[in-house]
Amino acid sequence: MSTPNRFKVTVVGSGNWGTTTAKIVAENVAIHTNVFDPEVRMWVFEEVLDGEKLSEIINTRHENIKYLPGVKLPSNLIAVPDLVSAVEGSQLLVFNVPHQFLSRICKQLKGHISSKVRAISCLKGLEVDDQGVRLLSDYITGELGIHCGVLSGANLAPEVALEKYSETTIAYPLPENHYPGDATGETWQMLFHRPYFHVRVVNDIAGVSIAGALKNVVALAAGFVEGKGWGENAKAAIMRRGIIEMIKFCKIFFNKNEIETFTQESAGIADLITTCAAGRNVRVGSEMARSGRSVEEVEAELLNGQSAQGMVTAKEIHSLLENKGLLDEFPLLEITYQMAFNGYDIDNLPAFFEKIR
Amino acid sequence: MSTPNRFKVTVVGSGNWGTTTAKIVAENVAIHTNVFDPEVRMWVFEEVLDGEKLSEIINTRHENIKYLPGVKLPSNLIAVPDLVSAVEGSQLLVFNVPHQFLSRICKQLKGHISSKVRAISCLKGLEVDDQGVRLLSDYITGELGIHCGVLSGANLAPEVALEKYSETTIAYPLPENHYPGDATGETWQMLFHRPYFHVRVVNDIAGVSIAGALKNVVALAAGFVEGKGWGENAKAAIMRRGIIEMIKFCKIFFNKNEIETFTQESAGIADLITTCAAGRNVRVGSEMARSGRSVEEVEAELLNGQSAQGMVTAKEIHSLLENKGLLDEFPLLEITYQMAFNGYDIDNLPAFFEKIR
Repeated sequence: MSTPNRFKVTVVGSGNWGTTTAKIVAENVAIHTNVFDPEVRMWVFEEVLDGEKLSEIINTRHENIKYLPGVKLPSNLIAVPDLVSAVEGSQLLVFNVPHQFLSRICKQLKGHISSKVRAISCLKGLEVDDQGVRLLSDYITGELGIHCGVLSGANLAPEVALEKYSETTIAYPLPENHYPGDATGETWQMLFHRPYFHVRVVNDIAGVSIAGALKNVVALAAGFVEGKGWGENAKAAIMRRGIIEMIKFCKIFFNKNEIETFTQESAGIADLITTCAAGRNVRVGSEMARSGRSVEEVEAELLNGQSAQGMVTAKEIHSLLENKGLLDEFPLLEITYQMAFNGYDIDNLPAFFEKIR
Repeated sequence: MSTPNRFKVTVVGSGNWGTTTAKIVAENVAIHTNVFDPEVRMWVFEEVLDGEKLSEIINTRHENIKYLPGVKLPSNLIAVPDLVSAVEGSQLLVFNVPHQFLSRICKQLKGHISSKVRAISCLKGLEVDDQGVRLLSDYITGELGIHCGVLSGANLAPEVALEKYSETTIAYPLPENHYPGDATGETWQMLFHRPYFHVRVVNDIAGVSIAGALKNVVALAAGFVEGKGWGENAKAAIMRRGIIEMIKFCKIFFNKNEIETFTQESAGIADLITTCAAGRNVRVGSEMARSGRSVEEVEAELLNGQSAQGMVTAKEIHSLLENKGLLDEFPLLEITYQMAFNGYDIDNLPAFFEKIR
C-alpha cells in the first residue's frame, strides 16, 4: 500500500528528556504507519565514550548509555550526529535541547528548512532581552520561519522513560498558512499519546510556555523553604503564590488570560506540583538552604555540573521586571531572586508576605 | 479602661487540630484585648490519664499531653470538660471536633446558645443523606440556629502547632441578621491571624468546605498511586483531576462557581497539595496499595486506630452520586471509591482515564 504523504519526524536533542520523547515518538510512528514515516531520526550532539561514538552506541545497542542509561530504545529510532542531515526531509521537528543551545542550533538550521515544516518545542525557558520577553516557540518561528507549538507537563523524565503513568499538554493552534495535509493538533497528539503518556491538546501556547518556565523559579523557592525545615504547609503556600504570579505574568506580558491552562492542565498546576516535589530546582534550593553552600557547589554535587534552570530564569525574570518597573507586581518571583542571588534571609519570608498581603 | 463588649471565645474540641487552633486563638486574644475577652475556653472530652484528668493536666501543665504533646499552651487557655459550661456566655464559637461527634455535640448544645452567637467550623466533611448533601456549617446553623463560617487551609496540624509558616482561608459572609457590634470577617481574621499563620478571608463557604472535604478522597487516590510506585507525575495527574472534580461538585450541588477558591486560596489547591504530600489519607492509601493490607489494618498501624476521613467521605460521595445518577460525572471520585472498597485494580487506572478523556 503506498502512503506517499506520511510525516517524517526528527527529534532535535538527546538528553534525558530529548531521548525520552524520541522513544515515545518512535513507538507511535511504528503504530500509526499510515500517518508517519516509520523511521524517526534523533539529532545527537556527538560524544566519544570509551572510544565509541554515542550515536553509534545508540544505533547498535539501542540505548543512550550517557543520558538515559538502562532504558531500551526502539530500533526505528536512528541517531544522527549531523544536525542538518538529521532534519533533512522531515516535516515534523521536535525541539528538545537545553535552552542555552537553542540559538546555535537555529543558526545552523537556518536556510535548510521549508516553511511548510512544523515544530513542537519541549524546551523550558523564556527569551529575555532589553526589548522584553519572548516565548521560545516564537524565537524558533522567528529564526527558522516555521510554525511552532509547545509540549509541557508533569513529566519528570526518568519516570516517563520507565513508562510510569503521566500526562502532558500540547499547545498547538493552527498557523495562518495551514494547508491541506498539514499537521494539526490531532497529528501531534497521535505522535505523542501513549497508554502511559496521556496528551491533551490546547491552543494556549503562552500559558503552557510560561508555566513551564516559571515553575522552576517557584520550585527554587519551594526548595529554600523545604531546606529550612518549614514543612509541607509552607511549601504549598509558596506554590499557591506561584500559580497566581504565573497567571499574572501571562496576562501582563502576553495579554492572555486563559487561567484554565494553569489550573486544569498538566502543564500548569500538575507540573508545578511534580517539579516542587522532586525536580532539580527544588533539590538545589533545598540543599542550598540546608547547607548554606553556594549554588555552584550544590549543582556540582547534585546535578553533575548541569545547572538548575530556575536560577537562570530567576535572574532573567528579575532583569525583565526591573526594566519594566514591575518588581512589586511579582513579589514571589522577585524575593526568590533575592534569596538566590543576594543573600536575602529566608527567615524573613513570613514577615515579607505579611507586608504584601 | 472598661471594655464591655469584648467577644468571649470558646473552642469546641481538643484533638491535635482543635488544640492547635485554641492555642492560636488564645495567643491572639491576649494581644487584641480591646476586642476579645482575654480568656479562651476549650471544651475537652474528659479522659483520665494515669489517674489524672486531661482537663486538669491542660490547666496546670499547659500542655495537651494526649493530643498535642510537647507543645506549650498559653496560660489564658482554659480547658473545660462540661460542654454547656464551656460555651456559656461566649459570643464566638470555634467548632473543631471530628465529624462523627458533631451531631451529639449539637444535640447537647441545643437550647443553650443565643442566636446572636457566631461560629466558625474547622471540621472536614459533608453531611450526606437520602435528601442530598449539606455543608457541615449549614448543619450547625440548622441545629443551633447560629450563623457559621468555615476555616480550612494547607494546615497539617503538627506543623502549625510548631509555628511553622502556614496560610489558611476563612469563609465568612455576613449573616442577614448582622447587628451593630456583630463579628465580621475582620473579627475572625484578628482571632486567627498570626505571624506564622496567615489568614485570608473570602465569602465562599461552599467552595472552602468542599475543597476541605473532597481533598481527602483525592489524597486517598494519590496514596494508591504512590503506593504502587508510579511516581510524582502520576500523583500530580490525580491531583489535577481532583481539582477539576471539586470545582464541578461545587457547581452541581451548590450552584457555586467561584473557581478562585480552588485555584488561588490556601483552602483549595494548597491544601490539596499538602494533604497529598503528607496527610493521613495519602499515607493510608499508599500503605494499602503497597502492602495489599486492609484499611482497618493500615489505620490501626498508622493512625493509632483513628480513621482516614477520605474512606468515609469516598463512601458518602459514592452513595450521593449513585442516588443522583451522577457517577459518570465524577470519574476520579468514583474510581477512588471502587479502588478503596471494591478491589478495583489500580493498574487499570491509565486505561480507565483513556476511556474518559
